[in-house]
Amino acid sequence: MSIVDRLRAARGETPADLVLRNASLVNVISGEIYRSDIVVHDRHVVALGSQYAGERELDLGGKFVAPGLIDAHAHIESSLVSPPEFARAVLPHGVTTVITDPHEIANVLGLEGMRYMLERAKHGLLNMFVMASSCVPATDMETSGARLEAEDLGQLLGHPWVLGLAELMNYPGVALGDEGMLDKIELFRHLALDGHAPDMSGRMLNAYVAAGVQSEHECTTVEEALEKLRLGLTIFIREGTTTRNLLPLLPLISSENQGAICFCTDDRMPADLLDEGSIDHMIRLAIANGVDPLAAIRMGSYNSARHFGLKKYGAIAPGKYADLVVVADLQNFRPEMVYRGGRLVAENGAMTLPRQAPRPINLRGSLNIASTELDFSIRAVGERIHVIGTVRDQVVTEKRLERAKILDNMAVSDVERDILKFAMVERHRASGAIGKGFIQGFGLKRGAIAGTVAHDHHNLAVIGVDDESMRAAVRAIVAMGGGLVAVDGEAVLARLPLPVAGLLSESPIETVRQQYDSLIDAAKSMGSHLSDPFMVMSFMGLEVIPKLKLTDQGLVDVEQFKIIDLFAQN
Amino acid sequence: MSIVDRLRAARGETPADLVLRNASLVNVISGEIYRSDIVVHDRHVVALGSQYAGERELDLGGKFVAPGLIDAHAHIESSLVSPPEFARAVLPHGVTTVITDPHEIANVLGLEGMRYMLERAKHGLLNMFVMASSCVPATDMETSGARLEAEDLGQLLGHPWVLGLAELMNYPGVALGDEGMLDKIELFRHLALDGHAPDMSGRMLNAYVAAGVQSEHECTTVEEALEKLRLGLTIFIREGTTTRNLLPLLPLISSENQGAICFCTDDRMPADLLDEGSIDHMIRLAIANGVDPLAAIRMGSYNSARHFGLKKYGAIAPGKYADLVVVADLQNFRPEMVYRGGRLVAENGAMTLPRQAPRPINLRGSLNIASTELDFSIRAVGERIHVIGTVRDQVVTEKRLERAKILDNMAVSDVERDILKFAMVERHRASGAIGKGFIQGFGLKRGAIAGTVAHDHHNLAVIGVDDESMRAAVRAIVAMGGGLVAVDGEAVLARLPLPVAGLLSESPIETVRQQYDSLIDAAKSMGSHLSDPFMVMSFMGLEVIPKLKLTDQGLVDVEQFKIIDLFAQN
Repeated sequence: MSIVDRLRAARGETPADLVLRNASLVNVISGEIYRSDIVVHDRHVVALGSQYAGERELDLGGKFVAPGLIDAHAHIESSLVSPPEFARAVLPHGVTTVITDPHEIANVLGLEGMRYMLERAKHGLLNMFVMASSCVPATDMETSGARLEAEDLGQLLGHPWVLGLAELMNYPGVALGDEGMLDKIELFRHLALDGHAPDMSGRMLNAYVAAGVQSEHECTTVEEALEKLRLGLTIFIREGTTTRNLLPLLPLISSENQGAICFCTDDRMPADLLDEGSIDHMIRLAIANGVDPLAAIRMGSYNSARHFGLKKYGAIAPGKYADLVVVADLQNFRPEMVYRGGRLVAENGAMTLPRQAPRPINLRGSLNIASTELDFSIRAVGERIHVIGTVRDQVVTEKRLERAKILDNMAVSDVERDILKFAMVERHRASGAIGKGFIQGFGLKRGAIAGTVAHDHHNLAVIGVDDESMRAAVRAIVAMGGGLVAVDGEAVLARLPLPVAGLLSESPIETVRQQYDSLIDAAKSMGSHLSDPFMVMSFMGLEVIPKLKLTDQGLVDVEQFKIIDLFAQN
Repeated sequence: MSIVDRLRAARGETPADLVLRNASLVNVISGEIYRSDIVVHDRHVVALGSQYAGERELDLGGKFVAPGLIDAHAHIESSLVSPPEFARAVLPHGVTTVITDPHEIANVLGLEGMRYMLERAKHGLLNMFVMASSCVPATDMETSGARLEAEDLGQLLGHPWVLGLAELMNYPGVALGDEGMLDKIELFRHLALDGHAPDMSGRMLNAYVAAGVQSEHECTTVEEALEKLRLGLTIFIREGTTTRNLLPLLPLISSENQGAICFCTDDRMPADLLDEGSIDHMIRLAIANGVDPLAAIRMGSYNSARHFGLKKYGAIAPGKYADLVVVADLQNFRPEMVYRGGRLVAENGAMTLPRQAPRPINLRGSLNIASTELDFSIRAVGERIHVIGTVRDQVVTEKRLERAKILDNMAVSDVERDILKFAMVERHRASGAIGKGFIQGFGLKRGAIAGTVAHDHHNLAVIGVDDESMRAAVRAIVAMGGGLVAVDGEAVLARLPLPVAGLLSESPIETVRQQYDSLIDAAKSMGSHLSDPFMVMSFMGLEVIPKLKLTDQGLVDVEQFKIIDLFAQN
């Protein structure tokens, strides 16, 4: 089949593959909803109109047909599964296209990691586009598995699925004209350049935008979003698992500016993807809160396609891919049928196609630790310690000063005050580096939790009551080649293997979700009172988010942007 | 100066080149108009805000500042001048960017012609982008100076000013899957693909759009435009010298669809450009007829930039070029100051910079006629002739059947019935081909008019009362190396030399305009009653517009799409 066949079908000379009759077409281009047939042939919409004949014909009886949804910015790694499994999660929710920044796997495996993602997306059911990860590693106060400079990222240029440069998280560097950042921007200047500049404002924001940045997904208030929008940034409103910005940002949206607003999920955990959904959830939430359905659908499809220059996506018109979502009720946008490239891939919330086992990929292991018999002991060289204070359900922390619990000249966990030992074990280069500290807020009364998901360096994080449990947790993770565990003494209570870079599973997402739930239950059985201690732990090593974090190099005071001693001077 | 300097100015660490204070900023991105300073450095806007210092500062006292205007589709050749002179005409009207299809010069000189246009735009004051001419020649029923296939057009790919493939005028060919047309579309599929499909509708239109076409500027009715918009074509509303579609199409524009509508001029004569204006005229006309000023300005700037993916144009924001238009009154959009790349280029309707003489370019002559002693006689082989009937101020014609005036066995002009001899002399290859016929409606009582502007082949057209005047006209044109003349017997009453391809002058546009006015006056003095007989004549050879036209190959019945005999069978 070729363009010649499609034109023949468009002219009505041969029957089309499929005619969807009596659709209420959500025309995001003309801004109208009206009755039309939709004629599909060879993966494309070839015509809108009536009196076309199809090999298959389906009368929709006036049901609404919207374009396949587009997630403008997502880290697939947050779903803990590989692209085909992510696809199985989001396609039933109507998401047919995702623009992804693979910076988690890039921090572990570099270009090899990005290429794994592209390889796993091949022949897949989801349109997956990639932004080249711009900030690997996040800072020099950590040991990551890779370092990507402009010369490396340049190798991705010209790849048909690579749309530009991913979120420029080193926003002070960009605004201050850091040479490495400007090199990367220069390389991708004709493509999309995603931003990431939480709370940036005024002159520094002007400089950041002047450097060429084109979008922003970190806005949390209308005031912040409006300042950024006025400077020309397309606003990606985000509704992730942790960061939920849609409702606070709804007042931003007006008929005058909605063309410059898109929807994205950024980071969503398996349970949220499966139960709540993705962009469809955002559309439902927006409509339920008064946004015009057409505008909401545009923000979840057409606007993102326009922003990224995806000519054949995001609208229903001749020449575009037949990515279609059928819904019965616009006020309750629940996809009944989802077509991707003219093929029915999901119906009533479930995939219509059997899951395919992934083809083998030779990907190197990512766990490189010299010995599992680690020394987690902390010699007491003072009386007071800097403690990471978690803030309920947030990724920011407080910097606290506490009295150390000292036994035999060693600083140890103190379950009474919920001050637990926290270690970050370098796992990329077998350097033996271990950052050690204490953290408050996890509530464990015994045992340990650990995992190789620890933004953005993804070293091995472990929080525990006693060193034996911590060592057992590390051994269990090394045995799995990466993943998450909950351990009590020698007993592994629950585990989730993440053999791909220590970040992803290739198992069915439903299995991963169950294993994850078991992990949380196990942590709770040991005393944790966080709704998701593993997610919170995964951000406790991210030294670009305030205030006190731990990397394999030690405790990072984010506001001072330097490594500090565990024991306070006085 | 570099990005580093711009970021420094954006951060306010060094004074900017220019600060425009107290602007009423027309923010086409956020859809608002509000008070702001505009900070310009190194050709770019680097910041919006207050309290920046500038080497120069200008208090606008609340005057409005809009983005430099963008003409989404123009044939610069219609202005009869080269790009620098076209720039001098449109910049005072606020047009700082033009997307041009050089298909007139391409029909004469092929790629060499397009390269001349690009060369003349270099270091120029206007941002000129080029669409690769897709239909050279228009048909096989004419002799043009060049034939451009996909292999030829491919040489323009990658040129930073080439944005895509120009208007696909062979619209039946595209819809029917003509191989040559599909080859060209395939080559430019990642870029912009302009359409041209007057009156196309229904299934054929679906096929045309399915082939990949992205825009349309030929709509004359709201019904036509709405059908095309719904199929995904961006609508370029056109207000040319001859074809004035803005007022009839105004009811198309809604708040829901205006993002998919742009303004263009297509073809504008020197007098209209100088006196009436360009896109600014369309904005004034739209606003005067009830369109919201912000929407009108968007259609004349931002929307076109988005359509063509021109990231640094069409809006006022950090990182974009400082192309700015200052107006005192939005209800009467008259540019008081025009900045291009941060430089004041026009003020109160006049250029602020002195005209520069063009640098020499070695461009070959385009007039290739074996002998100027042409035989215009027409032996009478019947009594009734097919006559081209002009329709006042239109480019379509009627096909009329009239009794021939016969003298000495020769068919001759008949001024009583206004049936004049019309010849189309092949001028590219010295083939000696001359198409001969008769035309009604020019009103000449004596003499002849002639010119090398004759769409799209641009052979030498001559209309005259007597063969001597016609020969004298040809001699005068050959002597000029191309151009337009009005001749009475041996006397050349008026002339406009167009030495560049027989289409363009490099003289000041004001001079060209005066010479053109003199030509019209001379034609009127010989009896013509058309408001512009030269413009009308230039379309009498265009065999893709109904109904009867004349090429060097003979009379073309456009509806039959074939060459017919001058003398009727019965």
